[in-house]
Amino acid sequence: MTDGRPFWRTEISEVKPNEIRIRGYDLMELIGRRSFGDVVFLLLSGDLPKGNEGKMVDALLVSATEHSLVAPSVDATRFVASGGVPLQTAVASGINAMGEYHAGAVDAGARMLLKAEALDLPPAEAGREIVRWYHEEGRLLSGYGHRVHERDPRTGRVMEIARERGFYGRYCELGFAIENATEEFLPKRLAMNIDGAMSAIMLELGLDPGLGKAFYVIGRSAGLVAHAFEEMTRERPYRDIGWENVSYEGPGPRALPDA
Amino acid sequence: MTDGRPFWRTEISEVKPNEIRIRGYDLMELIGRRSFGDVVFLLLSGDLPKGNEGKMVDALLVSATEHSLVAPSVDATRFVASGGVPLQTAVASGINAMGEYHAGAVDAGARMLLKAEALDLPPAEAGREIVRWYHEEGRLLSGYGHRVHERDPRTGRVMEIARERGFYGRYCELGFAIENATEEFLPKRLAMNIDGAMSAIMLELGLDPGLGKAFYVIGRSAGLVAHAFEEMTRERPYRDIGWENVSYEGPGPRALPDA
Amino acid sequence: MTDGRPFWRTEISEVKPNEIRIRGYDLMELIGRRSFGDVVFLLLSGDLPKGNEGKMVDALLVSATEHSLVAPSVDATRFVASGGVPLQTAVASGINAMGEYHAGAVDAGARMLLKAEALDLPPAEAGREIVRWYHEEGRLLSGYGHRVHERDPRTGRVMEIARERGFYGRYCELGFAIENATEEFLPKRLAMNIDGAMSAIMLELGLDPGLGKAFYVIGRSAGLVAHAFEEMTRERPYRDIGWENVSYEGPGPRALPDA
Amino acid sequence: MTDGRPFWRTEISEVKPNEIRIRGYDLMELIGRRSFGDVVFLLLSGDLPKGNEGKMVDALLVSATEHSLVAPSVDATRFVASGGVPLQTAVASGINAMGEYHAGAVDAGARMLLKAEALDLPPAEAGREIVRWYHEEGRLLSGYGHRVHERDPRTGRVMEIARERGFYGRYCELGFAIENATEEFLPKRLAMNIDGAMSAIMLELGLDPGLGKAFYVIGRSAGLVAHAFEEMTRERPYRDIGWENVSYEGPGPRALPDA
Repeated sequence: MTDGRPFWRTEISEVKPNEIRIRGYDLMELIGRRSFGDVVFLLLSGDLPKGNEGKMVDALLVSATEHSLVAPSVDATRFVASGGVPLQTAVASGINAMGEYHAGAVDAGARMLLKAEALDLPPAEAGREIVRWYHEEGRLLSGYGHRVHERDPRTGRVMEIARERGFYGRYCELGFAIENATEEFLPKRLAMNIDGAMSAIMLELGLDPGLGKAFYVIGRSAGLVAHAFEEMTRERPYRDIGWENVSYEGPGPRALPDA
Repeated sequence: MTDGRPFWRTEISEVKPNEIRIRGYDLMELIGRRSFGDVVFLLLSGDLPKGNEGKMVDALLVSATEHSLVAPSVDATRFVASGGVPLQTAVASGINAMGEYHAGAVDAGARMLLKAEALDLPPAEAGREIVRWYHEEGRLLSGYGHRVHERDPRTGRVMEIARERGFYGRYCELGFAIENATEEFLPKRLAMNIDGAMSAIMLELGLDPGLGKAFYVIGRSAGLVAHAFEEMTRERPYRDIGWENVSYEGPGPRALPDA
Repeated sequence: MTDGRPFWRTEISEVKPNEIRIRGYDLMELIGRRSFGDVVFLLLSGDLPKGNEGKMVDALLVSATEHSLVAPSVDATRFVASGGVPLQTAVASGINAMGEYHAGAVDAGARMLLKAEALDLPPAEAGREIVRWYHEEGRLLSGYGHRVHERDPRTGRVMEIARERGFYGRYCELGFAIENATEEFLPKRLAMNIDGAMSAIMLELGLDPGLGKAFYVIGRSAGLVAHAFEEMTRERPYRDIGWENVSYEGPGPRALPDA
Repeated sequence: MTDGRPFWRTEISEVKPNEIRIRGYDLMELIGRRSFGDVVFLLLSGDLPKGNEGKMVDALLVSATEHSLVAPSVDATRFVASGGVPLQTAVASGINAMGEYHAGAVDAGARMLLKAEALDLPPAEAGREIVRWYHEEGRLLSGYGHRVHERDPRTGRVMEIARERGFYGRYCELGFAIENATEEFLPKRLAMNIDGAMSAIMLELGLDPGLGKAFYVIGRSAGLVAHAFEEMTRERPYRDIGWENVSYEGPGPRALPDA
């Protein structure tokens, strides 16, 4: 504060008595005239879509809403909800789980695509360079391969929308070039998953890679609400895996030494 | 588990290799064909909208996205983001703040409207009964009055959409009847705020009052992402209010007694 | 702020350049001279122990440190840690789970004991009144019974310490009187568990029932750190229960209706 | 799970009906016989102290308990508590804030000391190498300097205990050698702060640097409980900084463009 900046400042929105504006636009005009996808784009990019950006964002949010109990975030939400806490606390705990290995691939994938782009090579060559480089350094290719899906069905679908809506450009091409190159350098072809597709499309939308987790945080929060509510209304309190199901692998019983 | 139920079970969605279904619908068909509002309604209610429910949900989500730094959730998010944590951790901490006094009014308000409805009286009389009753018991009228807005501008706007979309029914009438009755029993008229409007409209949509916080958790998560990102990219690390700004009001300096 | 109070004020501690005082005591004198149990008591009660309070707090904290994976908080912590997040985020998610049905029994139990005390009857009669009353109202007896332990071994041990340290008083007697009365009104005797023992002892220590969760939040945080670290260092990333282990019980596959 | 490992396994503790063991020791023997500091050391290191480790851990925990409202974690806790949530939710949100720039210096500092040690030089030379190297790379010296304290008073005190208890060794010497070298390479001398002291002492205790945040997570949780409780009992709900205190610096009012 010694540098004279106000302690609380923001470029996002302005609240005054009886007035709320987001990035200069009257919230009351946005409600009902612009879709949630448009307003999310406004919040993340600083301006309203010039074209189909809101529809593309909407499709990415829908793709992120649910993956059943097959995700650490959902399982954490269910355990927390079973402890007898408010709905939002359970959802927040699930969001806490969206780390480097879970939804986090979107930021990392976008940064990898920016590296590929910076090589200034034809896509196929850039893709080979990237896969060779990551392979040599033993680094994970963020956004490729999936534990459950051999070919993540969401990837093809959001890429189809990207084509329809005019967002299938250089970054999407580079993304598929990397997939093609996996066959050459890795034991098996790794298909681009939904995280990888989001990485490419968020760059096509002009968004900052640091916002990569936004689609999961916002979109999956809807799924987490449903799971928290289901746990609270359909299951018994205090989800208990049962002591019989824990394998204890530490030291056996031992006497307390004298202090 | 002694009762033979599977430990992990859900009615929300199903994941199998290369297949994801929400409530029976193929996620791949939902992406790009149905709006985020439609899919949120599907997740919360169990089925797709028969009519305009998705558009109404979308409008409620937009109304919840932002209220600048004038909310505990946003301020908590900014402090947590300044500690040097991943984006999602800061957002989750803000969601943690959405308690009984913050966004929580939606569940409580919906329950109050159900009580009003159960009185089986004309709206004006039911409203008077409710306000008298809450006033006598010293209870808060959830969803009425606002610290900043004398008349919350979001209320009128979402109610306008409710009329246009066919969701202005008995619960909305009861909501305004309660507002009218405040003049009689309280020191001043308390206008229905956006939480109160959500309470009424969520009941018109057929949703369970226990889902009242869903609109804030999902909608505001978009605003919280923007705030967390702004804090991380525009402000210095470690937001510090300054020791000079803390008023210490406890015991003065004292010597440690012998143990 | 219209009432002229400073926005940030506290009675807990004071920080000035090169000086930190807790409730008036120099932190530098506390470090190394007073145990963590003493300082926790100072933080919670406002003053240092006059007698053995710190040793009693220390024993309660130790009793709360661990219960293996047999608790929602620990399981949530493990799932969140597997997502690739910082240690503290995983621990925080586990703490989020310590709700009404998990550790929350301490506050509720203390409030029940205060009700028993207010009856101003001999302990055995007060205990019978409470169990009859709770039974009639269909309410849970907070702090009695346990899913795993027929007789929670921690209860006897902390009560033994309470006797040794001079904290076995009226509230402990009432607690056991309630246990005795369970045989009369309930299908089987419910033994006081560690939560129930904490409820009684925290009242003997003169602490506010609203602080009931403190022992778990502080004590179990140590166990949660160990679990988060073990998950991060000993297990593979992204803990995955496997789609085969989820029982989907919702609507079967269905075609998307026209929008 | 394809590799045949049990899904839930741990080396930390074992729970069976009427039995709880931590690392093989009976919890009932630990309660009342071993201090919380001893048991924390047992949880973190895998075994009970051979000597004074528990007393050293206890002193570090006490040093971390409180720093008034002058920390992002505490401020976040207060805002979340004001939203009307359970005590533990507010504490968890504060713990979420303990990131790279807040308490996170302990892990980073310990890793820096391991690098210094690996240089295999006399301390003064190793310290100079490290500061030169970090300075050239523009990296932060984790654990040096403080916003409020010119000389963090906790550092001297915990180092005094380290000497008394036999934990003032090579890592502590390297820590002070780095402090000495700051005068040569940086604009001004940066004194070792409490994070830096913890980094050195945790290595002397034989703990893994990845556990660096444990002292804050566990120790400060006690302070956060006190702050959450104070907020909930002494302040009005919904802590509101006031719209007048926010400086909006984004685009001015603008009309919604046609969609």
